[in-house]
Amino acid sequence: MGEFGLIDRISENIQLEQTSSEKGIGDDCAVLNYGGPTRTLVTTDLLMEGVHFDLQYVPLKHLGYKSVMVNLSDIYAMNGTPRQITVSLAVSKRFTVEDIEELYAGIRLACEQHHVDIVGGDTTSSLTGLAISITAIGEARPEDIVYRSGAKETDLICVSGNLGAAYMGLQLLEREKAVFEQQRRDSAGKNTQAIPFEPDFSGREYLLERQLKPEARRDIVEALASAGIRPTSMMDISDGLSSELMHICKQSGVGCRVYEERLPLDYQTAVMAEEFNLSVITCAMNGGEDYELLFTVPLTDHDRVSQIPDVKVIGYITKPELGHALICPDGSEFELKAQGWNPLQ
Amino acid sequence: MGEFGLIDRISENIQLEQTSSEKGIGDDCAVLNYGGPTRTLVTTDLLMEGVHFDLQYVPLKHLGYKSVMVNLSDIYAMNGTPRQITVSLAVSKRFTVEDIEELYAGIRLACEQHHVDIVGGDTTSSLTGLAISITAIGEARPEDIVYRSGAKETDLICVSGNLGAAYMGLQLLEREKAVFEQQRRDSAGKNTQAIPFEPDFSGREYLLERQLKPEARRDIVEALASAGIRPTSMMDISDGLSSELMHICKQSGVGCRVYEERLPLDYQTAVMAEEFNLSVITCAMNGGEDYELLFTVPLTDHDRVSQIPDVKVIGYITKPELGHALICPDGSEFELKAQGWNPLQ
Repeated sequence: MGEFGLIDRISENIQLEQTSSEKGIGDDCAVLNYGGPTRTLVTTDLLMEGVHFDLQYVPLKHLGYKSVMVNLSDIYAMNGTPRQITVSLAVSKRFTVEDIEELYAGIRLACEQHHVDIVGGDTTSSLTGLAISITAIGEARPEDIVYRSGAKETDLICVSGNLGAAYMGLQLLEREKAVFEQQRRDSAGKNTQAIPFEPDFSGREYLLERQLKPEARRDIVEALASAGIRPTSMMDISDGLSSELMHICKQSGVGCRVYEERLPLDYQTAVMAEEFNLSVITCAMNGGEDYELLFTVPLTDHDRVSQIPDVKVIGYITKPELGHALICPDGSEFELKAQGWNPLQ
Repeated sequence: MGEFGLIDRISENIQLEQTSSEKGIGDDCAVLNYGGPTRTLVTTDLLMEGVHFDLQYVPLKHLGYKSVMVNLSDIYAMNGTPRQITVSLAVSKRFTVEDIEELYAGIRLACEQHHVDIVGGDTTSSLTGLAISITAIGEARPEDIVYRSGAKETDLICVSGNLGAAYMGLQLLEREKAVFEQQRRDSAGKNTQAIPFEPDFSGREYLLERQLKPEARRDIVEALASAGIRPTSMMDISDGLSSELMHICKQSGVGCRVYEERLPLDYQTAVMAEEFNLSVITCAMNGGEDYELLFTVPLTDHDRVSQIPDVKVIGYITKPELGHALICPDGSEFELKAQGWNPLQ
């Protein structure tokens, strides 16, 4: 039934009893109301070795950094400010204390950059791989919180940064890993000096960085606030644009039209896609782990939002009857599908 | 260097930058101040299959229930009220949807009993065993929060319930598992009908319940409030009384004297200890997972605290120079050692 089926099945029976539970499962964060001037935002992620990361090519410091960023990204996606995290680790015997300190160095670096405190956690042993569970806590004034459900007809659909680069970075790492393993197999049993492996990443550093060291877009949240724009809906793109757009449309009860030629793409992403014989548009629509922000703004904010650097208007919100369309340069239309792909799940 | 060494080493460099971070690592919960009438309490636990639980004898529903209880227990230990939890699961292919629903049934039952909402989480796959990460969020008025650090000379040391039973329950389960595995080995290759395994638990149900279905002591927190008693220090006993007493003494800068004959023991715990040739006092002092509350109250509360059912005064707080002493019935004294043992770490 797949992960989403299971989550749907489990969460459909969940009812909220506490008056302080303003929003439960179903958005980037839970929203709690403890009676203060701000609402408390909570989000959590559990990352498992071999499923969400491969330590053959992910340095521990990068892993720590990314583990924090994916959670902070969820807080920003509510238009909130992250304040604290808790960090739980399960560590098997093959990790040294230095390894764990390296992981923590990345966790701390991410926290420092976003002024977030580590206030708790749990360190335990694991019989198998590494598990990392991070919970982020943040706050937002009630009037500032942006849900997935607020998109309105004629709203503009915007994304920050560019799309598909993290996915291409992963393809690149996987390819070099396969080359390395083939070399190792070829030299097995031969009495030759081991040839040091030199992965070919030249000119591809940006793609690797997008995969290994994503940045949560606080700058975009701040730029929107400075411009006096309050998005009508927002979420972060962890699963691929296509899948996330479907979430916003479903929860807002609307449709959308997105223009292929408006999709923000980096040059390296396009070059790599060609090298891999992949459609760069498919990578941009369905590649995961971009951690960019997807949001909608009222049509009247068009001029203001267009002036924000690194934000692009890619389409607009329609009546629900019009479905979810990707418009090609020749005018042909494709129905979007949520074939999102994200190892971080 | 052990788990505590690692945690100490990691957490010693952690500084708090946010004004909302009132208390970070080092107590049962973090305490956050978001400007409302109450403080927000946060605690988290990561439980790994094979380390913290053995699915050969732990039913999934019990596991779900216990996973929640251990977190709620930390909120009560701050004299707070739990309100929400997030639940993250990493599940390998050998689990069916029904298995996960069974686990969730236990999670939900625990939540219902304590009026706690499930507001978020994450369900992912795992290459190996089951991982469960729960974060609990609660609240307390600032004047009600009880830390580990407030114990004062002449304060009375109190515990709820009885001690060592969960540890004996685990010994019992481990013994029956060993018997079962021996039977299986004995019958391997023999062309006989498999004999159904019938573990011998008769008369030991209480010990099993203490191990498999611990209850967070909300009732004690409520009874203390009704009696008008505010403990000077408090924590939950997850690691063994001895280890937890040392935490309170260290953080409060005091010593303690605890009387062996005052330790609350259940009859079944004593019988099982004898059967296993273990000292019941060692089990009570060092056995883990009791999830009872350990707290101190001013001497002037003696009469009031003595009237609370299921609470026992076991000793008192001294000057730090007097160390941490366990007093035997013959008057001899032993220095307490933190040889706490807890698979939930």
